[in-house]
Amino acid sequence: MSSQIRRLSTLDANFAEQFRALLAYEEQRDPHVEGAVADIIHAVRKRGDEALLEFTEKFDRVKANSAADLEIGQDELKHAFDTLDPDQKAALKVAAQRVRAFHERQVAESWEFTEADGTRLGQRVTPLDRAGLYVPGGKAAYPSSVLMNAVPAKVAGVKEVIMVVPTPSGVKNQMVLAAAHLAGVDRVFTIGGAQAVAALAYGTQTVPRVDKIVGPGNAYVAEAKRRVFGAVGIDMIAGPSEILVICDGTTNPDWIAMDLFSQAEHDEMAQSILLSPSKEFLDQVQASIKRLMDSMPRATVIATSLKNRGALIQVKDMDEACELSNQIAPEHLELSVQDPDAWVGKLRHAGAIFMGPYSSESLGDYCAGPNHVLPTAGTARFSSPLGVYDFQKRSSIIFASREGASTLGEVAAELAYGEGLPAHARSAEYRVGPKFKKAD
Amino acid sequence: MSSQIRRLSTLDANFAEQFRALLAYEEQRDPHVEGAVADIIHAVRKRGDEALLEFTEKFDRVKANSAADLEIGQDELKHAFDTLDPDQKAALKVAAQRVRAFHERQVAESWEFTEADGTRLGQRVTPLDRAGLYVPGGKAAYPSSVLMNAVPAKVAGVKEVIMVVPTPSGVKNQMVLAAAHLAGVDRVFTIGGAQAVAALAYGTQTVPRVDKIVGPGNAYVAEAKRRVFGAVGIDMIAGPSEILVICDGTTNPDWIAMDLFSQAEHDEMAQSILLSPSKEFLDQVQASIKRLMDSMPRATVIATSLKNRGALIQVKDMDEACELSNQIAPEHLELSVQDPDAWVGKLRHAGAIFMGPYSSESLGDYCAGPNHVLPTAGTARFSSPLGVYDFQKRSSIIFASREGASTLGEVAAELAYGEGLPAHARSAEYRVGPKFKKAD
Repeated sequence: MSSQIRRLSTLDANFAEQFRALLAYEEQRDPHVEGAVADIIHAVRKRGDEALLEFTEKFDRVKANSAADLEIGQDELKHAFDTLDPDQKAALKVAAQRVRAFHERQVAESWEFTEADGTRLGQRVTPLDRAGLYVPGGKAAYPSSVLMNAVPAKVAGVKEVIMVVPTPSGVKNQMVLAAAHLAGVDRVFTIGGAQAVAALAYGTQTVPRVDKIVGPGNAYVAEAKRRVFGAVGIDMIAGPSEILVICDGTTNPDWIAMDLFSQAEHDEMAQSILLSPSKEFLDQVQASIKRLMDSMPRATVIATSLKNRGALIQVKDMDEACELSNQIAPEHLELSVQDPDAWVGKLRHAGAIFMGPYSSESLGDYCAGPNHVLPTAGTARFSSPLGVYDFQKRSSIIFASREGASTLGEVAAELAYGEGLPAHARSAEYRVGPKFKKAD
Repeated sequence: MSSQIRRLSTLDANFAEQFRALLAYEEQRDPHVEGAVADIIHAVRKRGDEALLEFTEKFDRVKANSAADLEIGQDELKHAFDTLDPDQKAALKVAAQRVRAFHERQVAESWEFTEADGTRLGQRVTPLDRAGLYVPGGKAAYPSSVLMNAVPAKVAGVKEVIMVVPTPSGVKNQMVLAAAHLAGVDRVFTIGGAQAVAALAYGTQTVPRVDKIVGPGNAYVAEAKRRVFGAVGIDMIAGPSEILVICDGTTNPDWIAMDLFSQAEHDEMAQSILLSPSKEFLDQVQASIKRLMDSMPRATVIATSLKNRGALIQVKDMDEACELSNQIAPEHLELSVQDPDAWVGKLRHAGAIFMGPYSSESLGDYCAGPNHVLPTAGTARFSSPLGVYDFQKRSSIIFASREGASTLGEVAAELAYGEGLPAHARSAEYRVGPKFKKAD
């Protein structure tokens, strides 16, 4: 198997250009997919369960007499959990407990304060009523994703979490069902694709309408989420997974090579980049890549990903490494150095930062506690890991006292007249006390 | 002027149907707009300043020799502020100070905790580097919107806030420029439309690329924001403004009528709804509407809005009013009752809640302190007022100790093998201490 990977140095004359080319990724939107998804959504909105049954038979080769037959009961979820391999069950329980404990720290609380004149202002925090969780079927069915999406929703206080998971040809993933049980998912439907997204967004006779849809999916699912956005909330549309490793040269090169592999094995578009000030260390990692490649079960995917999208980059120093990292705004950032606390303050944008040589990214994927749903493709510049905050929303509270309304009313009226909105002004002026009153 | 407004009662046989029809609003997306916007964005991405200058001449009738000429300097902003009418200036200062004070309470702080084995987990909160603020030109140029969008960004710690505002035929709104000065906007460009959104999203030779674009705009601006989403963050795409008033019948009916007017005067699609258990009170408000209508400068807009989208609805009791309010999830909710604290706990979804008879919605529009950019069209079910949190993002911190990596590594490896991701498993196993080590 090829173990080819691009070598760059920031001293190269054309480095800026090469770096830009390396990072260039633009989601390709396929007009055929866009059209097909629009039709599917339209059909599900119009014909509900009937359309849902047709599409499920057509795309997943699952024939059901009624949409109710597509629901998996709580007893079946519990059975999947009870009969799971004991080691897997124990691991899943540790993961769920740690993810829950971390996310409990994210719960936002309502607050309010009272001003001198008795006016009260505040922010009420409430959970969404209902969340929809899309779980891909087939090969990419990950129980860890069920935990990472469902647990924050439950911690936020979402009353009903509805999971959808396609079961192509009727094959169910028992570990996914076990994770749903463990995470406290309320209802599960064996539907997928754009039709499942449409059912969650608008509701059918059987599938309840939700307030937000989260979870990864293929191009059809991504396009469907994009289209229903506004009718419901959605999480980010995820791009290929990425890792950036910054290493000072003191971590075992085999460890770093495997960390790069762990990203590359996801899919051929995944991106693994290593930055180091040490040319010798980069050479060592390259040798590790070569030596370890053939032992990897997913070597074909890894090799393609590293060849097309990977890079080992020599930097002048750690400061430059941090600067390049800020330009990338990586999903996963390993700061594999002896004193990570000395550098973390310079890193402005990243989904998750793994500090020190022992923090492999895979710990974060499963059980460290923080979420593994992270902003990709540079979106860490402006967005955050999935969290409890995605399942809570805020309402402002304004309780003007009689005196407060009088004082504020004059200010509001002045500005409202200035903006040419006289009804706004008069509505405020009605509440201005007699001695201040300007109008009426 | 007509003062027609729909009267409904929840006791009507077909109430559910009428209520659904009343709320039905679906944003119309125009394929012509979609195509035009795609072309404009493409041109600005490809040709930068040159395209920006062409579109600005074409759409705004402003001819400039270079994109630099489209920038308004800080001195001009300060001059606009210094020469503002003293009453307006005083009002703007009170508003800015109160908006800032409220938003300072929203600043999220980083946190971290250490587990027994030395593993550290946490969440780092950092501001966006750069935010773009779209301000509409012409009639709908609102200085209050400049404050409401720019102040939270500055409170969050955004280093550079770039404002764009079209100046059709070269006309600048001095109050908008004054507000930009007061809010601490860093740079202002007199550009607008899809071309301004494209310039902010991708950058040109002159306009810097931002990380997130906020602020309202027309259909072209909304479509452009939708299209650049992913390359940059965006705030919500706002629908028409709405108010829901719940009144127990004890507030002055003239006040309530004016509150409904203040929403209706925004535009003909704005929605004003009143719920009350008292038929007599609804009659009184209807009489106030009739009596006050002709005195309103914007009576034509108000009358159209109330006729097409307004309603006075009689409910059985306050509980039913709260239930209907939760179905609507209104942008603005006035709880105009004697004891609002008794009811606010039942209201699950609203952008902002105005409590008691003195809290007119217009106080919130200008100077109470909370943001006036609020979720419309039922999106309060899953989204929040614009806030400091929109200009901050989080990075997870995972610092596994040697012992922590050993314990967690076994769990992660178990789950990774279960998901068919062996490189993930081995990357974790490398860090498992000798006595636990399963592989290698």
